[in-house]
Amino acid sequence: MIKPLSDHVVLETVKEEKKKGSIILPETVEKERSEIGKVVAVGQGKLDDNGKRVPIDVKKGDTVFYRKYSEHKIKDGDREYIVIKGEDILAVK
Amino acid sequence: MIKPLSDHVVLETVKEEKKKGSIILPETVEKERSEIGKVVAVGQGKLDDNGKRVPIDVKKGDTVFYRKYSEHKIKDGDREYIVIKGEDILAVK
Amino acid sequence: MIKPLSDHVVLETVKEEKKKGSIILPETVEKERSEIGKVVAVGQGKLDDNGKRVPIDVKKGDTVFYRKYSEHKIKDGDREYIVIKGEDILAVK
Amino acid sequence: MIKPLSDHVVLETVKEEKKKGSIILPETVEKERSEIGKVVAVGQGKLDDNGKRVPIDVKKGDTVFYRKYSEHKIKDGDREYIVIKGEDILAVK
Amino acid sequence: MIKPLSDHVVLETVKEEKKKGSIILPETVEKERSEIGKVVAVGQGKLDDNGKRVPIDVKKGDTVFYRKYSEHKIKDGDREYIVIKGEDILAVK
Amino acid sequence: MIKPLSDHVVLETVKEEKKKGSIILPETVEKERSEIGKVVAVGQGKLDDNGKRVPIDVKKGDTVFYRKYSEHKIKDGDREYIVIKGEDILAVK
Amino acid sequence: MIKPLSDHVVLETVKEEKKKGSIILPETVEKERSEIGKVVAVGQGKLDDNGKRVPIDVKKGDTVFYRKYSEHKIKDGDREYIVIKGEDILAVK
Repeated sequence: MIKPLSDHVVLETVKEEKKKGSIILPETVEKERSEIGKVVAVGQGKLDDNGKRVPIDVKKGDTVFYRKYSEHKIKDGDREYIVIKGEDILAVK
Repeated sequence: MIKPLSDHVVLETVKEEKKKGSIILPETVEKERSEIGKVVAVGQGKLDDNGKRVPIDVKKGDTVFYRKYSEHKIKDGDREYIVIKGEDILAVK
Repeated sequence: MIKPLSDHVVLETVKEEKKKGSIILPETVEKERSEIGKVVAVGQGKLDDNGKRVPIDVKKGDTVFYRKYSEHKIKDGDREYIVIKGEDILAVK
Repeated sequence: MIKPLSDHVVLETVKEEKKKGSIILPETVEKERSEIGKVVAVGQGKLDDNGKRVPIDVKKGDTVFYRKYSEHKIKDGDREYIVIKGEDILAVK
Repeated sequence: MIKPLSDHVVLETVKEEKKKGSIILPETVEKERSEIGKVVAVGQGKLDDNGKRVPIDVKKGDTVFYRKYSEHKIKDGDREYIVIKGEDILAVK
Repeated sequence: MIKPLSDHVVLETVKEEKKKGSIILPETVEKERSEIGKVVAVGQGKLDDNGKRVPIDVKKGDTVFYRKYSEHKIKDGDREYIVIKGEDILAVK
Repeated sequence: MIKPLSDHVVLETVKEEKKKGSIILPETVEKERSEIGKVVAVGQGKLDDNGKRVPIDVKKGDTVFYRKYSEHKIKDGDREYIVIKGEDILAVK
């Protein structure tokens, strides 16, 4: 199992279902979009100046929206995951 | 329902009504303009150094002006929302 | 009425009267100039690390000089205002 | 009278007298030069984290050297002044 | 033996085994990938504002994923190592 | 006399004597070189968060090496001086 | 003798011995390499917010790996030294 460090969060990629009749957005609009992922593991949180952990407000199984381009890819055997920082999570679905 | 994290705020886009006889501003002027949105959900606020939440001074239903280009788009089913940080809100209408 | 948030200040544009016989300055000189505005509304101030508001030293009606290019335009019905941060105010006239 | 805010200082431009026989420095050398001004008004100083003002170590009438390109120009009627931050003052003559 | 300073961590390079039938990813995708290393030595941690060491949550022998391009190479005799900062470790395998 | 403010230090330029038989270094190597100056006056030091001055560890007459390109030139009558920040001093000779 | 200030460290260059049969690395690989030096003198350490010195964990005679491009060259008579900051030291050999 992969254990994220400090304020990192490990995610699985979530593919958005394409709705019938949905409009294909041109590339320039796509760029402003955020990404969606499913939380696999959550770090203990960064250490603050008093030596206490700053909790990250998501838990395993949450579907989260995160800032595009903030991600790192890691690979465990055949499976590929995304690692982001807690602060790059915008919202929980 | 989408739950914004930390100091994030979820907004719905607000279309400004065009007044009869209003002057169409050229592109260069438009760029300095701020955007308008309606608050849908407000995060708990960032954790400060003492572990307390920093409140965000807007509530659900408020119409807010926010810094252009600070936004991220997220999509919940068919609906599209804007996510910004509390600090990018300039004023409440 | 527009209510500025945190350390924001709402201004009305002030047109400088052109004096008879005043010299028209070339564009390169103009760029270093500051802008002038009249204070319409003042935010409560930013929250400091102890949870207290940092006051902004201007009040409604003050004519202020502010750093050019720090401004955002907002529009309330037909009226257009400028929003700046308190720290971008250079001096009060 | 113009009242500078926070850590700002209002200056009058000082023209350096050209000495007889002084060498005219080429443009590239001039660029590293600092500017000279006479203090007209001094702000109360920035608020520190404890809510106290950080004093600025110059007083009205001082001739100061300041970092070039840190200045903003403001105009009060016919008179033009320079506004800089206290931290951009290098030395007092 | 090489002793990392402050918040630095010394690693040995880990070569990922290529699986039979695995797909060769094109260069643009590879760029977003993180790197894998095996911990050889861990620094004492950075000194915080109270003069205490901030611990680094990895130990000798751990296999870690780290941010690409954060590494420095050092050479001890014939052996080559990687030095990174503790904060550039994303996760432990 | 010129009085440096805060964490500024006033220096006189020191010309390095060229030794007989010394090798002239090409331009690219010269660029990494530091500069040498003689201390003329030392500021009181920056105010820290507790309102105390942070002392600068050099005194009048010291020959110091300082970071190239950190300097500002000021002129007092016919004499030209260099102003740098205390933190840009690398070492005392 | 040269006395480094604050968090600076003075080093002598160390030439790595080239082993028989060692492979010459191409330029692109060399660029990621760190540099090696021998500690000649260590500064007292930076002053922290409480007015105490932050110690630098190396001593005279240590062989250290340091971040390439963080160095400044200084010259004392015929001898040339390297000055770096303590935080640019990666590890002690």
